[in-house]
Amino acid sequence: MSTIPILTVFERSPDRGRGLARDMRVRWALEEVGQAYDVRLVSLQQMKAPDHLARSPFGQIPTYEEDDLALFESGAIVFHIAERRAGLLPQDPKARARAITWMFAAVNTVEPPLVEYGMALVFERDKPWFEQRQPMLETRARKVLGELSRRLGQAEWLDGAFSAGDLMTAGVLFRAKGTGIVDDYPILAAYLARAEARPAFGRAFDAQLAVFKAANS
Amino acid sequence: MSTIPILTVFERSPDRGRGLARDMRVRWALEEVGQAYDVRLVSLQQMKAPDHLARSPFGQIPTYEEDDLALFESGAIVFHIAERRAGLLPQDPKARARAITWMFAAVNTVEPPLVEYGMALVFERDKPWFEQRQPMLETRARKVLGELSRRLGQAEWLDGAFSAGDLMTAGVLFRAKGTGIVDDYPILAAYLARAEARPAFGRAFDAQLAVFKAANS
Repeated sequence: MSTIPILTVFERSPDRGRGLARDMRVRWALEEVGQAYDVRLVSLQQMKAPDHLARSPFGQIPTYEEDDLALFESGAIVFHIAERRAGLLPQDPKARARAITWMFAAVNTVEPPLVEYGMALVFERDKPWFEQRQPMLETRARKVLGELSRRLGQAEWLDGAFSAGDLMTAGVLFRAKGTGIVDDYPILAAYLARAEARPAFGRAFDAQLAVFKAANS
Repeated sequence: MSTIPILTVFERSPDRGRGLARDMRVRWALEEVGQAYDVRLVSLQQMKAPDHLARSPFGQIPTYEEDDLALFESGAIVFHIAERRAGLLPQDPKARARAITWMFAAVNTVEPPLVEYGMALVFERDKPWFEQRQPMLETRARKVLGELSRRLGQAEWLDGAFSAGDLMTAGVLFRAKGTGIVDDYPILAAYLARAEARPAFGRAFDAQLAVFKAANS
């Protein structure tokens, strides 16, 4: 890459530096492949402004800019990074296709029921239906966690060596950790612990925490 | 591709042949690139059996097999097809990265609130909280539809020529059409109509309908 890519991230992450925002996955991918980057900080107000919406049509973070290429959507950005530099996608075409399969499974099958469960815990806890409805959401979340755990079994990573598929899957589980249910699956808890122990994860986590601390010092 | 790929699809689609199952996207992609394929039909019971779970860890359809490569997850399968044959991804690396961005946006940002809204219409309509809760889901669904409509504007497709990003985005909108809210966005309704008018879409739709009719004749 000819220039240092720029990520747009929260100026003050609503997670208070716990690394739950989706820029964490992109930072982690950049650290895994050894690509330096800069950040542009946006406030919650700036995220609704036209110049941010030009970069990110759904008003989200992160975005990624490299020369005149502008990307949004964490899965797509991680994939772009993985295609450009070695370390996150296998060379063998079949193993590569399987790693990409896990990237899509992470965001389209594993993440939605976990987000739905977690969002209701935060935004619907005081609603009259919460107690009656939450078991249904928990069942849906536990279904994918159980299936993921069974597939992983005794393997270290989902398909051979650590890949962008693991990065996205572990990133989704990391985000859901606060709900408490991931810990009920020892195989998944150990998988996530292995992911968090990677030096690249640690550097990415520290970098996002430093932004939060600087904004709140 | 040396052999004809095999898709696993519903023997009797619960949508009664309306093309709402996720194999529709994969069939459409195969038709766009001119790749013949075979199908393996599974019943709802067979989807829970070990041999299907070996192919599809979350017990879903479609799956895709080609020689000894087995893939699941519609987005990943569409991407694999798009990488192997011309017609669904631009050659220019930057345009290609942007098309892939729309593939991830379709499944991770556009689809979840539309599925959540649609699922509640089907599975929670008789619940005591339905009337009180549904406006919140409708607001979330309309937020992404409004943003998508604004981004598309007067363009024919999301980023230049029709791509796998349009196929996935239109596929998500097509699935949500039955809820009625997509029609409130004329730009999106026209976009979806352009997608449905593609000959490859028509061939894919007819093929899935033929499976449903054969199972019910």
